[in-house]
Amino acid sequence: MIAPIKKNEKVLRQLSNLAAEVTAEVKSAKNPSIDIPLRNLSNVNFNPKKLIIEMGKAKQSREFYNISMARKFMQTFLVAEKCKSVLDEGKTTSIRDLYYMAKRDIPGTSENTFEEQVESDPIIEDLEVTADALREELGLFASNKGALVGELTLRDMGDTIDGRRMGSGGWSIPSIVEPNIIQFKKCDAKFILLVEKDAVWRRLNEDKFWKKHRCILLHGQGQPPRGVRRLLHRMVNELKLPLYVFVDNDPWGYYIHSVIKQGSINLAYESVRMAVPSARFLGLSSFDKAEWKLDDRVIIRLNDEDVKRAKQLLEYPWFQKKEWQKEIRNMLKLGYKLELEALSNRGISFVTEEYLPKKIRDKAFLD
Amino acid sequence: MIAPIKKNEKVLRQLSNLAAEVTAEVKSAKNPSIDIPLRNLSNVNFNPKKLIIEMGKAKQSREFYNISMARKFMQTFLVAEKCKSVLDEGKTTSIRDLYYMAKRDIPGTSENTFEEQVESDPIIEDLEVTADALREELGLFASNKGALVGELTLRDMGDTIDGRRMGSGGWSIPSIVEPNIIQFKKCDAKFILLVEKDAVWRRLNEDKFWKKHRCILLHGQGQPPRGVRRLLHRMVNELKLPLYVFVDNDPWGYYIHSVIKQGSINLAYESVRMAVPSARFLGLSSFDKAEWKLDDRVIIRLNDEDVKRAKQLLEYPWFQKKEWQKEIRNMLKLGYKLELEALSNRGISFVTEEYLPKKIRDKAFLD
Repeated sequence: MIAPIKKNEKVLRQLSNLAAEVTAEVKSAKNPSIDIPLRNLSNVNFNPKKLIIEMGKAKQSREFYNISMARKFMQTFLVAEKCKSVLDEGKTTSIRDLYYMAKRDIPGTSENTFEEQVESDPIIEDLEVTADALREELGLFASNKGALVGELTLRDMGDTIDGRRMGSGGWSIPSIVEPNIIQFKKCDAKFILLVEKDAVWRRLNEDKFWKKHRCILLHGQGQPPRGVRRLLHRMVNELKLPLYVFVDNDPWGYYIHSVIKQGSINLAYESVRMAVPSARFLGLSSFDKAEWKLDDRVIIRLNDEDVKRAKQLLEYPWFQKKEWQKEIRNMLKLGYKLELEALSNRGISFVTEEYLPKKIRDKAFLD
Repeated sequence: MIAPIKKNEKVLRQLSNLAAEVTAEVKSAKNPSIDIPLRNLSNVNFNPKKLIIEMGKAKQSREFYNISMARKFMQTFLVAEKCKSVLDEGKTTSIRDLYYMAKRDIPGTSENTFEEQVESDPIIEDLEVTADALREELGLFASNKGALVGELTLRDMGDTIDGRRMGSGGWSIPSIVEPNIIQFKKCDAKFILLVEKDAVWRRLNEDKFWKKHRCILLHGQGQPPRGVRRLLHRMVNELKLPLYVFVDNDPWGYYIHSVIKQGSINLAYESVRMAVPSARFLGLSSFDKAEWKLDDRVIIRLNDEDVKRAKQLLEYPWFQKKEWQKEIRNMLKLGYKLELEALSNRGISFVTEEYLPKKIRDKAFLD
């Protein structure tokens, strides 16, 4: 049965502090304002020491007595208030629900507080950076995506989830995996394997790969959502496990790995709590077709969009390592991409019995 | 731990019979052929007694000595052979993997057996209707989607899954839920509730709705995939439970309900094993805004596509009941749609504590 969620007192205090500062300004007859860190490209950089994409220190003041800012000022506190009431009730809610909760008319006017969810979502992100609290810590969730099985027992809202006994379906990874909801218990795993596609995850689960090789096996249904990224980050740091990433050999697969490892540009402020700089790229590599003698018929020609995206990746600071330049340039030279399923051409369980064990044994990954 | 999958002997026999018939024709020097039921609109009808959309009896002969059919004839047996080998190994595989497994050159020619997956997918559907075996029975899966919690214990590949102890994430519903993989055990539920959106499902789970009202709670992330539909069908029939469907009030929500209840046009051959004619539409109804005094600001104006789709629904034989015509016409008259999240405007847990309990108590559903 589900236990009530433990209140996140730190986040509640941060929200209260925001309000207290502004209230003080009101009382001393100043123009009420809050400083909001800038979330655009100009305020993002790659930290070569920590190996993550970070948000810079630039801020912008959002003022009440400013005709271009008054509406957003009001919205910021409305969202903060709703978040506080969700947290006070010990509940969580979706970003769409929050929009409906905060949407109302402004008394004495014909104005709505919010017209569309596209207005409230960026305000939530503003609040995340200003109150220094992730959306998940504010009690707000997005879609559930991804599943987990393997050598880990965890607690989810008071229920014990044994990853060794989750059948063919697995435990559905929730959107919020903060420590007040999810706690790790008995772990017998030696590593974590994140697979891009649920079909390949299912093959590995059916073949008991996680049991034979003692690992935790996850998929994120393509680009992993925040819940999966945050869970990976917590597992790597709290359980001290290496993380391997297993994706298609195409620019989108490379990018999935890079978001897991360094974070993303538009959500740079999350990197410190979501990125896993130690993540290793296990494959597919553009050298795999030759090395594993895959049939010519499994290749897919790169299209214009693939080539354009690959060239962008070559320019990113976090793809400057020699090995990565070699990997991407080889794909461009060959002119084709490879899907994980291409390995099936050598047999249903080739991926489980030959490809992955050898790659891991030989430490054949990109760092 | 995961037990091996029990072989589906009936399906294996059906596949062998297909091959035996053709082999006999070869031996007696006839033109080898198979009769494949037609899967187009002309061969679909609504059965007013069984209340499901059914496939008719029209068939087409696929012959080997026919220049327009030889390729498809070859492909049909290639897919059947791969399915048999998957089943013989006691495994399952994805439809994309199957494509890669069956893709090769034809000796002595420069031809491939398959060029793209769009060639192999329809062949799988041909095989489903010809061998009278669902794709899932052939051991082929698509994406995992949806999750389950609530008053049901089940076995999934030998593991016991207790729906009462699945935390905030839930059990991820696999793509294949046939009896050889999933078996139902202890059930304390009085009904099943399918929710369109995972965000609302999470709210209901967090509020322990399934515990208080003793039900099984599922979501299918929008239009439920085959795995969720098949699971609903099996639960309703084997556990003898009523099923309530809870979707957005828009033409797409109506249609989700209708696919669950009667089946879909393009997969009519599945209806008999997937449709749930007893399913009941619990809401949202176009009459709900007035009845539940929802704020004016939660409505969303219908766009042209919504109106066009609603008018199509009014014409379908399975939407001819007086109550359904009234429901859809009222939405068109009002000119707006309502999302499930609109209920949050009356409080985070309004849906759990007021809306759903009263609707169920009052039997306020559409049949």
